[in-house]
Amino acid sequence: MSKKVSLAVIRRLPKYYRYLDELHARGEVRISSGSLAKELGLTASQIRQDLNCFGGFGQQGYGYNVENLRNQIAAILGLNKQNRAILLGVGNLGRALINNFNFEKCGFTLVAAFDVTPGTVGSKINNIPVYHMDSLESFVGDNPPELAVLTIPPTVTFETAERLEELGIKGIWNFTNRDLRPENSSLKVENVHFDDSLMTLCYIINESD
Amino acid sequence: MSKKVSLAVIRRLPKYYRYLDELHARGEVRISSGSLAKELGLTASQIRQDLNCFGGFGQQGYGYNVENLRNQIAAILGLNKQNRAILLGVGNLGRALINNFNFEKCGFTLVAAFDVTPGTVGSKINNIPVYHMDSLESFVGDNPPELAVLTIPPTVTFETAERLEELGIKGIWNFTNRDLRPENSSLKVENVHFDDSLMTLCYIINESD
Repeated sequence: MSKKVSLAVIRRLPKYYRYLDELHARGEVRISSGSLAKELGLTASQIRQDLNCFGGFGQQGYGYNVENLRNQIAAILGLNKQNRAILLGVGNLGRALINNFNFEKCGFTLVAAFDVTPGTVGSKINNIPVYHMDSLESFVGDNPPELAVLTIPPTVTFETAERLEELGIKGIWNFTNRDLRPENSSLKVENVHFDDSLMTLCYIINESD
Repeated sequence: MSKKVSLAVIRRLPKYYRYLDELHARGEVRISSGSLAKELGLTASQIRQDLNCFGGFGQQGYGYNVENLRNQIAAILGLNKQNRAILLGVGNLGRALINNFNFEKCGFTLVAAFDVTPGTVGSKINNIPVYHMDSLESFVGDNPPELAVLTIPPTVTFETAERLEELGIKGIWNFTNRDLRPENSSLKVENVHFDDSLMTLCYIINESD
């Protein structure tokens, strides 16, 4: 597999994956690049280019085998690795993720949550134990989880990210709305912005007037 | 302004907007298309192409005026219109959005929330009144809000979307994880998938091993 795949291509893979997974669940066996393109708002040529980055998988005149393409994309993304994740900040958004988000589907196993609020600390939510933030270092020990999910207040984003980096965490899924842009660091970050999709919808609604 | 701008371009505008807004807040006056490209993970030529769809705004050898470009993008997206929004489903995610999400920044004013849980119905959260779902029709009346935010359980997604469409709602910001793909309808939908960013992060973490 080429190591020089652009992030723009990588970012499209989860969309392919989700849609192929849905098709597979519906019992669909194959799909043309044209249909895949239409569904995902891309061109057929872009789809072919994207998938060619990883060596193809399509056949001229047949299209793609749904299950095979889905599995190949899962393997590329590493969804089968089930790396460990912890979640910091058990407020409304943290609880929503612990209760309803399918971490396994995205390649991770949520193993613990951390907070500072009495009553929340020491409880279990959807079978995930909630520990005090003070015990983060002892919990992580010599075996850091790969991922930390940040649903803490924005004001403590930067200090918490530094603390996580020192602990050897590799990636941060950041919901705090304060962008983390680590430089000179091996830390990987995804800053989640709900804004982007609502601003897009704002355009689409207004344009249709 | 051209009406034939592709959705791929539109989807990048919020990212431009957020970054330009941040630069403006830091007092930056101008930025080159090269710097903008680097920050956003695009090429300078793609940035120029994107912005040319709307008539340019850049000057050869100068780059872009930060405040002007930010304001132009806000105008294109319609962020100044402040259309009305309602939120359906005041669980953890609904509460997180009501309490912490900046609807105004994304072009909308949140005016009411709806739920069915006693104790939640009749309360106010962050000054937003929570009404019973049964009073949705009477609340909307002849003057439907433009947007409905769906943070309801996935099982009631489709019936709720139909009900909203009948009421004349124009857009749905859908957090239920059940994709709405209205066909033969003027209803506009943004299906929000946290999965996409976590799957991307999964790839990036594994690739860096």
